[in-house]
Amino acid sequence: MKALVLLSGGIDSTTALASAIETYGRDNVVALSMSYGQKHINELKASERIASYYGIEHINADLSQIFSYSDCALLSRSEAEIPHESYASQLETSDGKPVSTYVPFRNGLFISVAASIALSKGCDVIFYGAHADDAAGSAYPDCSVEFNDAMSKAVYEGSGKQLRVCAPFVGKSKAEIVSIGLRLQVPYNLTVSCYEGGDTACGVCGTCRDRLAAFKANGVKDTIRYKENR
Amino acid sequence: MKALVLLSGGIDSTTALASAIETYGRDNVVALSMSYGQKHINELKASERIASYYGIEHINADLSQIFSYSDCALLSRSEAEIPHESYASQLETSDGKPVSTYVPFRNGLFISVAASIALSKGCDVIFYGAHADDAAGSAYPDCSVEFNDAMSKAVYEGSGKQLRVCAPFVGKSKAEIVSIGLRLQVPYNLTVSCYEGGDTACGVCGTCRDRLAAFKANGVKDTIRYKENR
Repeated sequence: MKALVLLSGGIDSTTALASAIETYGRDNVVALSMSYGQKHINELKASERIASYYGIEHINADLSQIFSYSDCALLSRSEAEIPHESYASQLETSDGKPVSTYVPFRNGLFISVAASIALSKGCDVIFYGAHADDAAGSAYPDCSVEFNDAMSKAVYEGSGKQLRVCAPFVGKSKAEIVSIGLRLQVPYNLTVSCYEGGDTACGVCGTCRDRLAAFKANGVKDTIRYKENR
Repeated sequence: MKALVLLSGGIDSTTALASAIETYGRDNVVALSMSYGQKHINELKASERIASYYGIEHINADLSQIFSYSDCALLSRSEAEIPHESYASQLETSDGKPVSTYVPFRNGLFISVAASIALSKGCDVIFYGAHADDAAGSAYPDCSVEFNDAMSKAVYEGSGKQLRVCAPFVGKSKAEIVSIGLRLQVPYNLTVSCYEGGDTACGVCGTCRDRLAAFKANGVKDTIRYKENR
C-alpha cells in the first residue's frame, strides 16, 4: 500500500501526513502541495520543511492559472480583504453563501489533481485533512461530509477502482485533530495557518483564532510566533 | 442560466456545445479546453476553430504538469505506442484494467477544473460529452454512469449547491450523438478525433474507427480527410 497526502503546511494536513506515515511507513508516502496564487507563499515553504523533516518525496503542482478567474480573498491577485472574524461570525452575515475565503471548488480540484498524480505514482489511497469545523454551516461546502462521500466515490469509480480517498478527520474538530497530532509528535512548530501570510502569525484572522482555540482546548501552548492574541 | 462546456474538439464535446448553445444561447455559453501534453495539438486548434465558428468565449487551461508523471500512450512525452484496435478488442487483452490511452483520472480533473472556472465565471451548469461507448467494459472508467453520478454530486455539494454537471449523452452511443448533432447542424468538418495527431486522420486508430462507424450508422458521409479505411 502507498499513500499520497495533500499537504498545505497547516495543522490538519500535517496531522493527516503523520497518520499516513504511521500507517504506511515513510517510504510509501508522497506529499503533494499546490501553488494557486495564495497570498501566503509561506504555506509552500512550510510544506517543504515538513516533507524534509519526515524525509518523504514532495511534489508541488501549480494551479494558479485555473484560479486566475476567481475573486476569492485568499488569492494573491484579489483586492478583497481577509476578514478578521471567526468563520462562525462570517457566516452570520453571509446569507447562506460560502465565505469570501472560499476558493471555488478548491478541494474538488485538489483531490482530482491528487488522484491523477497518485495513479501515476502507483498509490492506492489519497489522504486529506478536511474536518468538521471547516464544514460547519456552509463556510466551506467542499469540506462537508456530503462532498467528501461523493468525491471519494468519484475517485474510486473514475480510477477503475484502483484508488480510494481517506479523510480521517472528516467528523472531527480541530481540537481533536491536534489531540491526535500531539500523540503522533507532529512538529507543529513547522506548520503555518495564518491567512495574512506574514512571517509572524497575526493571531486575529479566522484561522489563527481557530488554531489558538484548538491548542487551548488541549491545554497545550502553540509554539509558533504570534503578533497578538496569545 | 449560464453554461460552461468542456470542449476537446471531437464530435462528442462539439455536439454537447451545440446542445448548450441551443438551450442557453451563445451569449451564455463559455467553452473550456485543456492542454495536457497531448500528442495531438490539433485538438486544441480544432477547439479554437469551433469556438470561433459559434462566436463564444474560449478558455484554455494548461494541465501538462499534472499529467507529467503518467506513462499514458496519449501524452506527448510517452514512448508507448497508440494501439491500432477498437476499444473492445483492447479490452479483451487488458485484464480488466483501463486501456493504455486512459489518462489517469482525466475526466475527474477536467470536471474539477471546469467547476472552479465555472464558479468564477458565474455559470450554473457544466456540460460535458461522456457517452456510453467510452464507458463500455472498463475502457475509460471515468466515463461511466457511476463516475458521472458521483462526480456530479461532488460538484453540486462542493460548490454550495450553486453548480450542476450535465452529461447529456451519458446513456447514448456515439451514433446517437452524431444523430443529435446532425439535427443541430454541428460543423463536424471542423472537428478532429484521430489519436495519431496528423493533419489527415489515420482511419485505423480506435477513435477513427468508432467515428467512422458512427457516421455510417447514420447513413452520412464523414467529411474530414482520411488516409485510409473510408
